Parts: sequence; structure tokens; C-alpha cells
Amino acid sequence: MQKPSIPKGTRDFSPSEIRRRNFIFDIVKVKFEKFGFSPIETPSMEKLSTLTGKYGSEGDQLLFKVLKRGAKFEKAFAESDVESLKDHNFSDEALRYDLTVPFARYIVQHQNDIFFPFKRYQIQPVWRADRPQKGRYREFYQCDADIVGSESLVSEVELVSLIQEILNELSLSNHTIMINNRKILAALIASCNATDFFSSITVIIDKVDKIGIDKVVQELKTNIPNNEIAKLFQELFKLSDSQNDILNWLENKLLNSELGRKGIQELKYVVESCNILGVNNLKINLSLARGLDYYTGSIFEVVLNDNSMGSIVGGGRYDNLTEVFGQKNLSGVGVSFGAERIYDLMKDLNLFPDNLDKPSKFMIVDQSESTINGLQLLNFLRSKNVECILYPDNHKLKKQLKYAHSNKIPFVVFIKENFAVEMKVELKNMDSGEQNNSLLKDII
Amino acid sequence: MQKPSIPKGTRDFSPSEIRRRNFIFDIVKVKFEKFGFSPIETPSMEKLSTLTGKYGSEGDQLLFKVLKRGAKFEKAFAESDVESLKDHNFSDEALRYDLTVPFARYIVQHQNDIFFPFKRYQIQPVWRADRPQKGRYREFYQCDADIVGSESLVSEVELVSLIQEILNELSLSNHTIMINNRKILAALIASCNATDFFSSITVIIDKVDKIGIDKVVQELKTNIPNNEIAKLFQELFKLSDSQNDILNWLENKLLNSELGRKGIQELKYVVESCNILGVNNLKINLSLARGLDYYTGSIFEVVLNDNSMGSIVGGGRYDNLTEVFGQKNLSGVGVSFGAERIYDLMKDLNLFPDNLDKPSKFMIVDQSESTINGLQLLNFLRSKNVECILYPDNHKLKKQLKYAHSNKIPFVVFIKENFAVEMKVELKNMDSGEQNNSLLKDII
Repeated sequence: MQKPSIPKGTRDFSPSEIRRRNFIFDIVKVKFEKFGFSPIETPSMEKLSTLTGKYGSEGDQLLFKVLKRGAKFEKAFAESDVESLKDHNFSDEALRYDLTVPFARYIVQHQNDIFFPFKRYQIQPVWRADRPQKGRYREFYQCDADIVGSESLVSEVELVSLIQEILNELSLSNHTIMINNRKILAALIASCNATDFFSSITVIIDKVDKIGIDKVVQELKTNIPNNEIAKLFQELFKLSDSQNDILNWLENKLLNSELGRKGIQELKYVVESCNILGVNNLKINLSLARGLDYYTGSIFEVVLNDNSMGSIVGGGRYDNLTEVFGQKNLSGVGVSFGAERIYDLMKDLNLFPDNLDKPSKFMIVDQSESTINGLQLLNFLRSKNVECILYPDNHKLKKQLKYAHSNKIPFVVFIKENFAVEMKVELKNMDSGEQNNSLLKDII
Repeated sequence: MQKPSIPKGTRDFSPSEIRRRNFIFDIVKVKFEKFGFSPIETPSMEKLSTLTGKYGSEGDQLLFKVLKRGAKFEKAFAESDVESLKDHNFSDEALRYDLTVPFARYIVQHQNDIFFPFKRYQIQPVWRADRPQKGRYREFYQCDADIVGSESLVSEVELVSLIQEILNELSLSNHTIMINNRKILAALIASCNATDFFSSITVIIDKVDKIGIDKVVQELKTNIPNNEIAKLFQELFKLSDSQNDILNWLENKLLNSELGRKGIQELKYVVESCNILGVNNLKINLSLARGLDYYTGSIFEVVLNDNSMGSIVGGGRYDNLTEVFGQKNLSGVGVSFGAERIYDLMKDLNLFPDNLDKPSKFMIVDQSESTINGLQLLNFLRSKNVECILYPDNHKLKKQLKYAHSNKIPFVVFIKENFAVEMKVELKNMDSGEQNNSLLKDII
């Protein structure tokens, strides 16, 4: 018989892995709550009509579709009735691809029960039929926090604080929060009359951290049929890191663009407010573009300073997310924590606390036939909230001690024959090997 | 545009619902941990070969199969290549149907990394393409705890204590834990030479709480071609609730059955040990059968004394669960908490604590243009771990207060013009309407 296995790109999690993952999720949750976000959950499956067309054609192909059930479908197939099979779709539901589209659907569906601005968080798995590779899974968790129903840039400032607080708590304080604004990008590209190529341009400039300035400029020259663009970004890439230099250059460059001036004003507000609040790792990065089409204002991405892991947090402002479901003019801004990357990173960097595995403090050994003394002791200790287990089988002592050792249980308690009368046990320290008689009341 | 919706049988959960669900899950988790169980998680999707044939043919039809992706399949379909379509299965993965089969698969797959007896718990959703109805969903959570790799009845006793402790903590102390043993059922039925009808008989007698003794006896007479069976169960149903009466009757009845004597011995040990430990709501119920085929020893089911909700916890011992995946002789026993039923029940009975919604303590109102004072105050209060939010928009005061009220925020803090200098704010008690000047240090 073949050893059983799981679908590729999916994972089993052992107790020790689950405890480490929960360490991350718990910190994220506590901070989300502290910042006033409330949890929601949506179903794993959404109607296909809710999901298709929201992630580009590439995204559509990565949806895990769920096969329709029912007699009609089975019959058509059994009868090789191809025409009927064609009419009859194979699937009308799919597993969610992200948490953003289901959230937009949720808002529109429940708009009468929501008080806006609505601050929600959602920590659930999503599924993508991507080619699995290191760090990329077909089932993985997203941790999203969004503020919807307010255009105020105060939300952006809050999210920057939130990102900083969560990453610091995870011992990842050595990070940079990069910020840009889609309005500025749009205005810059429009200033060269290259708006038609917005998407291709952003895909290229987004790669600058990976392939370097020269190659990006070369790609712009080769792929964008507009001479101004390569020149513009060449100039842009030469700017210093100074917030003032960047803002001055932009103000000069976009003097005549209303959209550009709006973008600069937004960026300036967020950056200056964060400065006042003492956030010292925020950095304007004008080549930051973010892949997703729905962003319309501020965009964020967080990278570790000494790591090539790529971004571990991303987000931005969107003005039209719910429009496709029939609700216009609802601006929102959100961040998504890449929990899987953060997990892999913290594992590699050995950043998890040592005490996450929670072995019981005591293991009781009772080699009598009825084990009733052992059960009573177990019951008693648990009633005192002492974490303990009772080795259930009458195995050889060596085997029982090995089990305690494997499970990192520090003390073994032996039930002595006169236990019921004298309430005496024998206590073995598994570390030192020391063993001595103790009164029950002393071991608590 | 049509209002968006979700697949039938699935649910969105609002913040208030999530907090109530988590109240249950958190208690279950804490108690599972206290009793020495460790968490694992398995993927939402399993290979179809792992799942099919494990739940009977009815179960197989309720699997949510995931449509295969890939060019081959698309091409065959586009070309109406029915033969190729037939060869090429539509699906080779499906969403998990329960947590038990994936757990058995997990044990066999990871057997070299597991120290037996292995006490694991698992709280994850499962999916069944059942016809949705009140209390029955297509996506729902299961909370399972199992002890695998030990034949000791100590595990049964522990599980009974665990059930009692969890239900008491959930304010559901008014429950009865019913216990029976499959060996006894098998021996009783064998004593009438009706072993061939074991399955049909158990389905009928399991209904006695719903349809009453007379109808069960009638059904046995009609459907089981064996005269002894109806007589046997007529006698059995007449027994008193007394543990001694029941055990005496069984001992007499199954004197010559080795299997029967083994079953009685098991039942006796569990019941007597529980008595000694002070469990007072355990009741032998000889007509308890449990639907699942894989049980081979003790079986449990828990009902509320004053409610017709049906069973809220179930479980039992299985000797051959992992055999189908190639690992023989691994006995286990487990319980599964019906979290969805418990949730519906606690909602109906109004058993959730009042303080589960966690509104922020303060909402800051800053009607200046920059809102920078508001942001600083927000930042300061959060650094003191005071839960607060800042109303982000410059809306009319009435609208802001309404928001605080709707979100049950008890205090609104108004930033005064001289805030930065004097550190004074105005504090409004949303309950009393009272409003007065306060120094910042006083409101913390």
C-alpha cells in the first residue's frame, strides 16, 4: 500500500508548527483589536460570479473551482451528451482567492447592518492554483485589516502605526515601510502622455529592487514606445532618500497636474503626520507601484532591511472596490500581513520564543491494574489547574519515561502503594534524574 | 445590479457573531490543552483517494470535489473529445468531509515523528454538500480531540471528564453523557444470530429517543427477519436506569459471549471509575449505537436534559481507523464537539456573557483640519494600552456622536483648542450625557 499524501502545494501542521503560527496570529489579532478593528469571517466558497473578473485573466485561471453536484450533470456525462455538458457549467462556486473581494461583497450585502467607517479584520486561508514553490503555497493564510467608508488620511497614518507595532512585537523591528501614491504615479506617467502604458510601466519600475536601475531603464526604453518615460524614471531614480528632496522634485514636476498635486498633498500629510508621531522607518519610494489595479491613492509595502524575502506587508487605498457589487463612492484603505512569509522568516531567523511548546508539567505513572489512584491524582491536580497527564498504559517503566522525555515533560510522579493513605508520591526530575519522596501537597 | 450573495448553506459572520463563536472555541481550546491535547491542522483539500470510500456511498456523494485545472482537460472539452474526457477525471481533490479521516491519514504519513499515545486536537471547518436546513450547513466547524496509540480505558475516563468540564464552562451543565459499548451491542445481536442485520438494527434502535419504544419494536418486527431481536430489545428497553440493574442484566444475558464479557468489563471500568471521580451525569444507554461504522468499543453521546436539540457531543473508540492507510493495530478514542449546535443553542438560551463585544473605551473627536492633535492623543492613549479610536472624518458632530453610540463606545473625548498647551480635553459620558473638562492624565 502506498503511503498516503496530501495535494501538492498544501501542508500539514504539527503541534509545534501550529503553536508557532498561532504566536504570529495572536499578536496580529491583539494589535488589530487594540487599533479598533473587529473580526468578520466569510465562507470558504463564493459564487463564481462574485470572484471571476476581479483578479485579471491570470487570476481567474488560478481559482479553485468546485465541481457542481447533482443528477443532471452526472447524466449528461454518462450519456456523453457533449452539447448538454457544454451548456451545463461544470462549476458555479470557487474557493476564495483573497480576502478583499469577499470583503467588498460582504459590505454591499450587509450595508444596512454596518456603521461606517467600518474597521474590520479577517484572518482566514485563501486558495490559489499557482505552481507551488518555496514560500508559495496553494492554501495560505491572509491577515487583512481595512477601514472602509472614510476618505480621511488619518486611516493611512493609523495603518502605518499598526504595521510598525505588529512588526516590532514580532521582533522584526528592522524593517522599512515604503510608501507611494498612485495619483502621483498616474500624474507622472500622464505628464509624458504615456497613460496608455500605465500598467506596463508600473510592472517594470516595480522591479527596480530586484534587477537594478540600469536594467529597468533599459526595459522602459525597449518596451514603452515613449521616449520621455525612460528619461523621467532615470531622473526619479537619481533622487536622494530625503523626503524633502523627493517632495520638492515632485512639486516642481507636477505643478500643472491637479491629480499630481492631490497625490503630493496626500503623501505629504501621511509622511509628516507619521514623522510627528515618531515613526522613523517610513520611506517614500516613488517606484513602488503594487500590482493590484484597484488601488487609487496611498500604497504601502514593507521589507526587512537585511533580507531579500520580498515584501511582508502590503496595502493601499481604493476608491471603487465595492462599485462592481453596486455600491459606489465608498473609499477604503487596508493592509495585508503576509503571515506565511513572516512565519518562514521567523523560523529561519530563529525568532520564536523558546516556551511555545506547552508540555504538561507532570506525567503520572500508575502501574496498578485499575489505575484508579492515578486517575484520582490526575483529577485532583487538574482541579488545581496544574497541567498534567497520566500515562494510560501499563507499559514498562522505561517506555513510559522515554515518552515523558520525548514530550519534554519535566517531572514524573510515581503513585506509591500507600498513596491513598499517606498521600505520598515519588517525584522524578527528568532533567537532573533526581528522585525523592514528596507529599502531594508539596508538588502543587 | 443584483445584490451579491453567498452559496447556499454557507454563512457570513459579523463581528458580534465571531466573538460569540470564539468564546466557544477558546473554552474548548483551553480545556483541550489542559487535558494534554496538542493542536494539529491539515489542508482543506485532500486527495480524492484519501476520502472516497470512507463515509459510505452516501458520504461520497456529499464530497465537494475540486475541478481539475490544466490545459489537457480544457482541450478535451473544447474539442468535445468525450472519450478523453471520460479517461481524464474531472477531479482528483476534494474538500475534507470530517476531521477524522484526515487525522488517520496524518498519523500514517507522519508516524515516524509522532510519540504514541498521541493526544491531538483539531478545530477546523469541514464541508458537506448536504441539503441545507435549519442547523445544518455546508461549511461548519468540528472540534475533535483524540487519543491514539493506546488501548487503555483511562482515555475514555479522561474524555468523560473533559466533556463534563467543557460543557460546565459553557453553562451547559444540565446535560447527560450517554455511554454504551459496541462490543455489547454486537454480542447482544449475535446472541440472537442476527449479526448480518447489525447495521439495520442499530439504525432502528438509535431512534428510540425520537419515536419511542413501541415504534422501534414495531420497526424491528417489520424490518428484521429474526423474531428474537424485537423480543430482546423489548426486554432491554424495560430496564431501569440503575447502572447495577443494567450491568446485571447484561452479565446474565451475555454469560457465554467472550466479546460480550469484554464489552461489559470495559463499560463497567469506565462507569465505575467515573463514579469514583464524581462524574454524576454519566448514564448507560444500551440503545445508543452511533452511526459511524468504525467504532469498535466505547461510544458516547451527550444531550441536554431539557432540550430536543439532539446530541451536542459524540465519540467513541476505534481499533482500525488507520488500517486503510496501511497502519494496523493502532487503537484510538475520540470525541467531537458539535460547535455549530452548541452555538445555536447558546444563542437561543441567551447563554453568552454580555461583555463579548469589545468596543473601544474612548472615541476621540478632533474637528481641526490636520487632526494632528487627535492623532497624537490616539497614539499616546494606545501607548498606555487604552483602547481608543479617532473618528477619522471631519463630519458634523451629531454624526460622530451617533457613530460612538452605535458602536457602544462609552466615552467621547473632544480635543480642545488649547489641547497641546494645557493637555485638557472635554469628556462626554455617552450613557449619562454628562460632559466636563478633564486633564488628560485623569482620563487614563
